[in-house]
Amino acid sequence: MIKIVILGAGNVAGHLFKAFQATENIEVVQVYNRSETALEDFKSETAITTHLADLKDAAIYLVCVKDDAIKEIISRLAHKEGIIAHTSGSVPLSTSAKRNAVFYPLQTFSKQKEVNFQEIPFCLETSEEKDFSLLEKLAKSVSEKVFSISSEQRQKLHLAAVFANNFSNHMFAIAEDLCAQHQVPFEVLSALIKETAQKATQNSPKEVQTGPAKRNDQATIKQHLAQLNNADYKEIYKLLTQSIKNKNG
Amino acid sequence: MIKIVILGAGNVAGHLFKAFQATENIEVVQVYNRSETALEDFKSETAITTHLADLKDAAIYLVCVKDDAIKEIISRLAHKEGIIAHTSGSVPLSTSAKRNAVFYPLQTFSKQKEVNFQEIPFCLETSEEKDFSLLEKLAKSVSEKVFSISSEQRQKLHLAAVFANNFSNHMFAIAEDLCAQHQVPFEVLSALIKETAQKATQNSPKEVQTGPAKRNDQATIKQHLAQLNNADYKEIYKLLTQSIKNKNG
Repeated sequence: MIKIVILGAGNVAGHLFKAFQATENIEVVQVYNRSETALEDFKSETAITTHLADLKDAAIYLVCVKDDAIKEIISRLAHKEGIIAHTSGSVPLSTSAKRNAVFYPLQTFSKQKEVNFQEIPFCLETSEEKDFSLLEKLAKSVSEKVFSISSEQRQKLHLAAVFANNFSNHMFAIAEDLCAQHQVPFEVLSALIKETAQKATQNSPKEVQTGPAKRNDQATIKQHLAQLNNADYKEIYKLLTQSIKNKNG
Repeated sequence: MIKIVILGAGNVAGHLFKAFQATENIEVVQVYNRSETALEDFKSETAITTHLADLKDAAIYLVCVKDDAIKEIISRLAHKEGIIAHTSGSVPLSTSAKRNAVFYPLQTFSKQKEVNFQEIPFCLETSEEKDFSLLEKLAKSVSEKVFSISSEQRQKLHLAAVFANNFSNHMFAIAEDLCAQHQVPFEVLSALIKETAQKATQNSPKEVQTGPAKRNDQATIKQHLAQLNNADYKEIYKLLTQSIKNKNG
């Protein structure tokens, strides 16, 4: 049985708590939060506290607070014997505790939506090599996808995620806008969007690239540019067409 | 019972044939193809022919041939009494037959992969208003998503699909490349990519936009640009960041 304490009571804390409660070998012995209100959801199931001085002993302290509060919380846990792991994608591995770690589930969580952790990748890092296996055990208790990722790699991953998530979503938003301009229900594109994501993750996206840019179909490209009257969209069409050509040429 | 003839024996023809065969009220009375070899897969299940002169009578002739062969085939069917419908997204409604139509399933088909038509949108258009309901009946026999889309709308839809499919896939390809450069398995991003598509189709993509551009987080944007050493990627990052700001500001 691995005893853990969760610090924080937001979305990440809530979803992880539920997932750990459903396992056999993890026991969340306490949940800490600065304000008591947010602890309501936890108190029927485990011990709660609003005082860091009252933290119970645990093998792992999971710091699930906002990025800008992580540093202070860790400094106040620095004397603890257990592993101190934060759950943020963009904060580097701390150096102030005895045993520092990162336990980062790469996904966006919203409060209402149920989370299936089995599919969610956990990116782990520990300051002490010997601590990795325990952290890995914790991650594997809820997910099949567990990776050892250094702080430097995590930084690049964050950049890659801007392309994979923010920028691809912007492409969907432009498509939505083009549909709206011509009274086409955006729903018509739903199956295509889902299939695009499916294909890109089952194969290499570079290998499954299609379209006028990939085929170097000048007639279609010219016709498309003539149809675009939003200056941003036109620039984006040109630049991405050239970039696809460069990448696949 | 709606009797139809399928012209062509490629991916679209094959998948539609299978789907119609599984319905109660559609009968594919014949499949035509110029070469006999490709008809092998059909001949145990229905009549086949390689001669347009031997076509059987049908309520609907579905022209599932390559884009550049559609015009000629339709001109040779112009005397037929049935509806002549092609299945292409980029060819306008014909004017040469008596009853012209478009029966366009908006999806990419590969030969090996099974297709669940229930989820695939069909974009329909007919030259004669009274023909719409029969074509709609045919589409609804295999799919829940049936839309009336004019040739002009179809052209815009094709453009929107370049953003929704080709360009978003290029974003995934860049993310893949950034991961590879830093020895991060691309698999780490799989769940995020699938969730991105899921969210964009369940909501308005504009509404669910997140990231440094949306937050106008200059520090992160600057740090990301400094990390990108591929000139194309840097330009794309800048342009899309600006475009997200313009769209959401």
